[in-house]
Amino acid sequence: MIDIHHRIGVVSPSTDGVYSALTTIDGLAAWWTTDTAGDAGLGGKIELRFLPGGFDIEVIEVVAGERVRWRVVDGPPEWIGTTIDWQLSRVEGFTIVLFTHEGWAEPGEFLSHCSTKWAIYLMSLKALVETGTGSPSPDDVRISDWH
Amino acid sequence: MIDIHHRIGVVSPSTDGVYSALTTIDGLAAWWTTDTAGDAGLGGKIELRFLPGGFDIEVIEVVAGERVRWRVVDGPPEWIGTTIDWQLSRVEGFTIVLFTHEGWAEPGEFLSHCSTKWAIYLMSLKALVETGTGSPSPDDVRISDWH
Repeated sequence: MIDIHHRIGVVSPSTDGVYSALTTIDGLAAWWTTDTAGDAGLGGKIELRFLPGGFDIEVIEVVAGERVRWRVVDGPPEWIGTTIDWQLSRVEGFTIVLFTHEGWAEPGEFLSHCSTKWAIYLMSLKALVETGTGSPSPDDVRISDWH
Repeated sequence: MIDIHHRIGVVSPSTDGVYSALTTIDGLAAWWTTDTAGDAGLGGKIELRFLPGGFDIEVIEVVAGERVRWRVVDGPPEWIGTTIDWQLSRVEGFTIVLFTHEGWAEPGEFLSHCSTKWAIYLMSLKALVETGTGSPSPDDVRISDWH
């Protein structure tokens, strides 16, 4: 199994801002995709839609201010059954976000694309919490022919 | 062994611009770090320096316009012995860059940081080739407390 790993630090007084951006529909819509619906609480199902398609994810673990874990239940075949893990911690004025998208069956161009795209969305999350404005789809930063 | 994977598409008439940015000292200095020295040709050694340290890499494979491969010979212990692979191809007006930083011994926060940072530098490379201006260190985009 192959995992995608990322780490950012968000300038913020506590983990509250990042945590809220991960655990509310309005928060997710402000950095990932404006077309977000569903229930972002534990056991809920979140429906995220992008121009070329989308994902349905289930919220399988929530530890307030510390951790959020999702399982992908619908979307591209490469994504189904993978898990997306968010760990939050505090270091000197930063909320550190450790991100892992776990359980890809194999490497390939689509995984490589998603790895880069995740970094772009994480920077959108960082901007949202730091400045109040993210860059969610469909106005996300374009990285290639695959958007 | 763990690998970092990324994929970008650079709007460009051929692979020449990306290839030049990977195989010349001036090119590398314009997207990765301004403090770049050495010989970027096959068998050459490139010395890249950043505020907190740097890397020495050897150019171990070059296929004109298609592939560049480096081995890290000095730098952070996690990097030494790893290889950095660039594959270029053309798709409808884009130069597709498949990037892999191969052979990390284990996951961890530093790998996660480097994965995100590589995405940022790849976007700098894309901007350099598309607009003539990249964002190399020390004016690179800050992603966290680790810069």
